[in-house]
Order: sequence, then C-alpha cells, then structure tokens
Amino acid sequence: MMGMEEMQLRPELMRHVRTVDPYVPGEQPQTKVIKLNTNENPYPPAPQVARALQEMDADKLRLYPDPTAEELTGALADYYGVKKNQVFVGVGSDDVLSMCFLTFFNSDKPILFPDVTYSFYKVWAELYRIPYECPRLDVGFRLMKEDYYKENGGIIFPNPNAPTAIYEELDFVEDIVAHNRDVVVIVDEAYVDFAGRSAIALTAKYDNLLVVQTFSKSRSMAGMRIGFCIGHPALIRCLNDVKFSFNSYTMSQVALACGVEAVKAERYFRETVRKIIDTREWAKRELSQLGFEWTDSRTNFLFVRHPEKDAGELFELLKKERIYVRYFGGGRTSQYLRITIGTQEEMGLLFAALKRIIQDR
Amino acid sequence: MMGMEEMQLRPELMRHVRTVDPYVPGEQPQTKVIKLNTNENPYPPAPQVARALQEMDADKLRLYPDPTAEELTGALADYYGVKKNQVFVGVGSDDVLSMCFLTFFNSDKPILFPDVTYSFYKVWAELYRIPYECPRLDVGFRLMKEDYYKENGGIIFPNPNAPTAIYEELDFVEDIVAHNRDVVVIVDEAYVDFAGRSAIALTAKYDNLLVVQTFSKSRSMAGMRIGFCIGHPALIRCLNDVKFSFNSYTMSQVALACGVEAVKAERYFRETVRKIIDTREWAKRELSQLGFEWTDSRTNFLFVRHPEKDAGELFELLKKERIYVRYFGGGRTSQYLRITIGTQEEMGLLFAALKRIIQDR
Repeated sequence: MMGMEEMQLRPELMRHVRTVDPYVPGEQPQTKVIKLNTNENPYPPAPQVARALQEMDADKLRLYPDPTAEELTGALADYYGVKKNQVFVGVGSDDVLSMCFLTFFNSDKPILFPDVTYSFYKVWAELYRIPYECPRLDVGFRLMKEDYYKENGGIIFPNPNAPTAIYEELDFVEDIVAHNRDVVVIVDEAYVDFAGRSAIALTAKYDNLLVVQTFSKSRSMAGMRIGFCIGHPALIRCLNDVKFSFNSYTMSQVALACGVEAVKAERYFRETVRKIIDTREWAKRELSQLGFEWTDSRTNFLFVRHPEKDAGELFELLKKERIYVRYFGGGRTSQYLRITIGTQEEMGLLFAALKRIIQDR
Repeated sequence: MMGMEEMQLRPELMRHVRTVDPYVPGEQPQTKVIKLNTNENPYPPAPQVARALQEMDADKLRLYPDPTAEELTGALADYYGVKKNQVFVGVGSDDVLSMCFLTFFNSDKPILFPDVTYSFYKVWAELYRIPYECPRLDVGFRLMKEDYYKENGGIIFPNPNAPTAIYEELDFVEDIVAHNRDVVVIVDEAYVDFAGRSAIALTAKYDNLLVVQTFSKSRSMAGMRIGFCIGHPALIRCLNDVKFSFNSYTMSQVALACGVEAVKAERYFRETVRKIIDTREWAKRELSQLGFEWTDSRTNFLFVRHPEKDAGELFELLKKERIYVRYFGGGRTSQYLRITIGTQEEMGLLFAALKRIIQDR
C-alpha cells in the first residue's frame, strides 16, 4: 500500500485542497465523569420521544424522508402560533444557520455580529466569503444596540448570547430589527427557553427577522440533530429554494417523527426547563459563596471567573476531579469558564470539588 | 400581520438574497400507488436495523452524537478491508459529495464530469464557484475515458453512471485515476452494489482516488440519510478538517447505531441485492418484448425509451394508472424514462399497464 502510513498528501495533489485550522470538538470522555462542558440537557427527552422511537416502522426507512418535513413544520407552527409556511427545519441549528448565511448574506457590505459570540458565525462567513465586522461587547459583555445601526449586509446575534449567557429583552431586539429593515436580521435563540420571551413574537411585524432555535438544549435532543427557524413566509421560501437546489433530503424519518413528539410534549418540556432554571439560580448563589463572579446567566450554562484563580488552572484541577467544564483560553474570555447546568446532584459535586480547590490555594 | 400573505419580499430586502431555480423533488404520492420514480429499494432494511431502532436508548439522545462516528467508520472499515482512518461518513452521499467538492475542488482549472450525469454535480460546482466542463457521453451514453486526460482541477463521475445506468469495468476507472495523479478523482458508486467490483480496491494503490457510496439504495435506508467515502487517510483527514471546521455534529445517534447494524447484516444485504438484480434482468426481457430499447443497466433502475412512443406521453399515461416513473424532459435524455426496479409484483403490474398503453396506440 503506497504511502498509506504517510499522512501528508503529495504537494502536487495538495495544491487545490482546502486547508483549514482543524477544529477540536469538546472532549467526549468515555469513563464515568461529570460532563458540564457541551451545554447538553441533564434530563432525557420526553417519554413521548422514546415511544416514537420504539414504535417507528423500520420498513419505511427504505423510502426517502418527506423533503418538506410537513409534519414537523406543522407541529412547530401550531406550538408557536404561526403558519406552517413560516417554519424551516434542518439538521440541528448549525445546519439552519449555515443555510441562512448562504441564502441571506450576499451583500458587499459586511455583516455584523458581536466580537464575543458563537464561534461558527465567523467560520460560515469565511466559508461563504461574506465580509464581516464584529462590534465589541461592552465591559460587562453586553451588546450595544447602536453598534448595529450602521450600514451593513445583514446582522446575526444570539439572544441570550453565548458564551456570555446574557439575555436582552425584546424591545432591545426590536430596536435592532427596526433599524435594519432592508437587511435580514437573524436572532439565534438556542437558549431562549431558559431566558424569557422569544423574538418569534416579532416575526408577525417584521419581514426582515428570522428567529433560529434548536432541539439540542431545552428539548434534550442534541443526539438527534434538529433545528428550525421562523420568519416571514417569503424568507422561508427563499431558504427552501436554496436548500432544495442542492440537498433535498437532510432530516431522517426518525428525526422528523421524534421531533413532532418532542414539540407536543409541552408539559414535560416546561417541567425540565423549570428544573434547570431552579438549579441555575441556586448555582449562582453557591458560586458567590466561593468567591466567583458570573454574568447574569439566562441560559443552561454559567459564565464565571474567579478573581484569584486562573481559569486554565481551575479547568485542569476540575478535570483531575473528573469534572469537565469548558475553557476557551485566549482573548477577552481567557479568565472565564463555561459551566453547563447539570442535575442538582452533579452541581453539588462540582461545588464540593471547587470548595476543595479554592480552599487549597 | 404585515405583508404575510404577500409572498414576495420587498425589493430592498430581496437585493442580497441568493436566488436559485427552485428544485422540484420527485413526487411523493400520498395515495396507494406503485412508486418507481426515486430509485428506492423495494425491500425493507435488514431486521437488525429494526432491532437497533427498537433497542435505542432514548435517554442518550440528550447527548451530542460522537462527532468522529467511530463505530460506523469502524464497521465500514472492517467490511471493506480498509483502515478506519480511510473512511468518512455523512448525512447521505449528497452531504459527502458536497463536502468533497468543497474540500478538493479548489483549482482555477475546470473540474470534469459527464454532460449526462447526476444533476447535483453542477449545482455544487456553481454553489462553490468551481469552474467545470462536461465532456459529452458518446451516442450510446458511454463515458469516453480520453476526455478525462486533459488538464483539469479534479474529476467526478458516477459508476454506474446515472441516469444512464451503465457500468464501466475497473480497468477503465483505473485508467482515468492513473492519468490524473495530481488531482482528486471521485468515483460516485451509489449503485455499484448492483453492478460489479467497487473502485475501493484501487484506493490502496492511488492516493488521489475517493470512492463515495450510500446506504440509500442497496441497503434500503434512504429514510435514514447515511453516505460514506473511502480513500487515502490523508484525503480523509482533509475532509474531516473541513467538516469539523464548520459543522461538528451532523449524523444523529440513531443513524450511527442503525448504520452499524446495516453494515453487519451482510447476508440479508446480499440476498436483497440479488433479488433486485434478478428482477432487473427479467424486466429487460419483458421490455424488449414490448418494443422498448434500454441501456444495459447495472443499477436498481432501467433507462428506457420506446421508438414509437413519446416519453412524456408514456409518463402521463402510467401516472393515470397510478404508476410513477421518472421523466426528465429536455436535453439528450428527453425520450427516456427512468424506471426503478420494484418488487417482482410491482414490475408485473408495470408491464401489464405498459402492454395496455402500447397496444392501445
């Protein structure tokens, strides 16, 4: 076998290969650990989802899935009180967001998103050769809406923002949307169910607003890959046109069927979200007692720093205790850790470990 | 609600929206019909797949899937006698192919693919702004390998080709690969299990060859969205680098688990493929008796024309009989129909209908 052990391609062959900085996904530890590093939900999906999975007719898998995802868009439309033609679904919100960049951000003017935010916005902008500018969050990691009033080719920001965990009220969001009627404004609400009102309420009023959400956090279905967005029917039609033009079948039959059940399981959903919010508010108090500072999280994670402890060091010490949190390193957030809200028990173990570490210094 | 009924976006907002010719997916009829229009497998997935689905632990769906798809790449590596780091998996072969275009076709020189072939090659080339040329198939719809010996930025062709259904032997494929050592040659083997030897055998010898396959046809899993490719470890690493750089989690836990079982179910797989090949060869004889001409299909579909009947008319008449086949219209293939191989019973009903139609003229 020729050169099979040699992992480099020959230079002649390498010339036209796209080279990127390899992304290293968050660690997925194999042994028993406390995993608070990827913002997964500590509670399982609704029992209805488990049932849908079990009752799935495997024979039907021989057929392509419904490319229009009628049932799932219908269930989401019912739940959010919009029309079916206002909903677009995809393979996780990453797929939906990527499709939005491709469809709506085609101006020569730069799109705008915050300097500290979801790291993939920059990746998609570069992938699709979209110029971009990144207004700086203020010292308290807040968005300043006036930064988004200048001429631009489109706007995207998460609300709550990540990893800062800060939520802005709807009038703040509306101001940005209203100041930018001739470009598409995308509000990425991956964490909104843990926060407050969704900007979906504004889509009836603004034809330039798209609101993106995911099943990976509040609906406990990261492993199933479902995301969606809601907006004016004409925006949704543009998304579908682009999507159908180059990949008709993306969501599996299983994802479509389980997604419908997850949306219907409203009571379970509300209970789970409530538990996580309760744990989060308790966790904030515990963190304060340990001397930590934190932003006012409205998500299922905390964004924290300790004034006297190096974040990288804390990260390593927790890892030794088999507790995984997220450490970014570098930039404005280099002294911060992102800690996913686990169960009450997991968080108790985290605080016990932190107590040992802090007192040990 | 402002302009909600008006499906056009305001021109100011529309300026920077990507406009495409909307693709119309093959019809998915809702009533009881004979569906021979999207090359699905008439037989269900292996019983092991049904069992994996039933035994899936829904609780685990709260976690992100394994981004490296270790188990599935491992199962495929075992089956095809290659190493795990020679396998890349994706959400259907469309996802894999799109990723290959993005990763390997970055030259200023045009990539080459046949004029009559899978329609999405052109779509991805345009999406990623890759220049392309389309050498013309000969009068019998055969590839002419010499067309692929000129300078180019990469090559892709299906083997068997679609919708022509024609398979070329491995020495033909090898000639093209060997003449193009400094660009990546992608062989799209969506239908190869119904045809003959796979070019996977050549990946040990050529570091510029990538072979793409799918679970949608021979493994009866179109509804699950699984595709993969096999090549030199360095090519696979480039694909993974690009993939991880902008979307880490694409395949659901369910797809990964069911995919592994499908690969292991070798006996069921071989039996199903054998049945389809037998039906296909019988169908060729039946078609001849009805006066049809066909290419020598080595796929799970037939590419046919009737010298005295208009293809569009045949398509409509069959539809009235509730039998759906594929009619492309326009171009070199305008007088051809593509007919998926169904069960023996479905094909019997097709021929009965065709007999009525032909004799009626």
